[in-house]
Amino acid sequence: MNYAGMHPRDVRRLFREGRLNTQTSGMCLGYAQANMAVLPKKYAYDFLLFAQRNPKSCPILEVGDTGSPYLKTIAQDCNVASDLPKYRIYEHGELVGEFDNVEAYWRDDLVAFLIGCSFSFESELLESGVSVRHIEEGRNVPMYLTDIPCEPAGVFSGNMVVSMRPLPPEQIVKAVNITAAMPRVHGTPVHIGHPAYIGIADINSPDFGEAVTIRENETPVFWACGVTPQSVVMNSKPDFCITHAPGHMLVTDIKNADLKF
Amino acid sequence: MNYAGMHPRDVRRLFREGRLNTQTSGMCLGYAQANMAVLPKKYAYDFLLFAQRNPKSCPILEVGDTGSPYLKTIAQDCNVASDLPKYRIYEHGELVGEFDNVEAYWRDDLVAFLIGCSFSFESELLESGVSVRHIEEGRNVPMYLTDIPCEPAGVFSGNMVVSMRPLPPEQIVKAVNITAAMPRVHGTPVHIGHPAYIGIADINSPDFGEAVTIRENETPVFWACGVTPQSVVMNSKPDFCITHAPGHMLVTDIKNADLKF
Repeated sequence: MNYAGMHPRDVRRLFREGRLNTQTSGMCLGYAQANMAVLPKKYAYDFLLFAQRNPKSCPILEVGDTGSPYLKTIAQDCNVASDLPKYRIYEHGELVGEFDNVEAYWRDDLVAFLIGCSFSFESELLESGVSVRHIEEGRNVPMYLTDIPCEPAGVFSGNMVVSMRPLPPEQIVKAVNITAAMPRVHGTPVHIGHPAYIGIADINSPDFGEAVTIRENETPVFWACGVTPQSVVMNSKPDFCITHAPGHMLVTDIKNADLKF
Repeated sequence: MNYAGMHPRDVRRLFREGRLNTQTSGMCLGYAQANMAVLPKKYAYDFLLFAQRNPKSCPILEVGDTGSPYLKTIAQDCNVASDLPKYRIYEHGELVGEFDNVEAYWRDDLVAFLIGCSFSFESELLESGVSVRHIEEGRNVPMYLTDIPCEPAGVFSGNMVVSMRPLPPEQIVKAVNITAAMPRVHGTPVHIGHPAYIGIADINSPDFGEAVTIRENETPVFWACGVTPQSVVMNSKPDFCITHAPGHMLVTDIKNADLKF
């Protein structure tokens, strides 16, 4: 199957019908994918406030109505309890299991948060000739836990996780401008140049993902990463939480290009 | 006193000490001013979700911690119960009164929402030579209730209120680009050109504010307006609500130029 060329509704149908449960990287080219965190209502205000206070780490694309697994804006006819390829369920911060469908676990008090993903700005960087090293090298993006504190909100607090892409000098301005136009998928870099300045001891030892080659004359450029809210939520050990399984995202109907103002 | 040239902390001190209670228009040039709505915690999730779903109408600059009148981000050493020049208190949607200080009415369950204001982008438009007709004519900006529905959230729903500035053809692109860079103060126009298309019957009869001259060859340009959340909140008749009195805004420490990405 040519998943790259399919419309999002068609891959979501394959997921819903249990005919496919693979990672979504490379599917439906041009369309935005989203991270998901589903939390009981009692945590929802603190989480939404955390997102409001930390928009670069936690750019919200849509929040479902309380109790509803259906979306209204970023995906049509979409049930977030069935239309992602794979889910994880956590209780008190502990992984309970992975599931291809979580409709049996849905509850009237659950709220779905869909969060922007760097796939969208990487697609725009590549279109503009900006190099994305981990894609060139077939690796997962390198991510680092920094010493930059997020603004806490209620029960949620923690430091920012960043992703890094090394850039040659002539591509830095272009990368800043392209991502500046996309605040709903992390926006501009949070740091350019000096890993130690943001608490990263060894650029070759990322905390998550894989190290990539940094060539002579290249500068490491750091963006806030969607792993931040996941990490912050897990730290607070909510009694119940559903997320997408890593790499198994919601494929939305929103074109990456439409995430620009 | 030269209020235009004062630092925001100094005018806030005058308000706090009860030595001044006038409108803030023209004060502390270059600094952003903010609308305020203070609601009991039971309404806070719905209001924050309303803001998330309607960012052009309701761009949040800061949300206070529950029960705290102190801000952390947009104004230093600022108590929002004393540091604005004048307040209104509403109960069940009815105006109870105007007050220069609301510390006596503060409660442990109150949440302060500070919302971006078009003063900020008007300042940037003027700097760039874009005309702002109501300022030229010494009037209040014309505002209209449209038939554009806001995305509802819990108890909050209603149509968008817009402000209008007529522009000559050669200034429209410039105005779009300047405001595109300022999403935290309403961002890009929501409509350009045809009042009837968004439910405005008579451009010369605004629902709020005052009509302004539209010259031959000028086009009316419409931006989402901060009156929208006020109107939506009042429609839902919360049992208690504190707002700034019209025109008596919070003067923040944030420079308008810093509201750009």
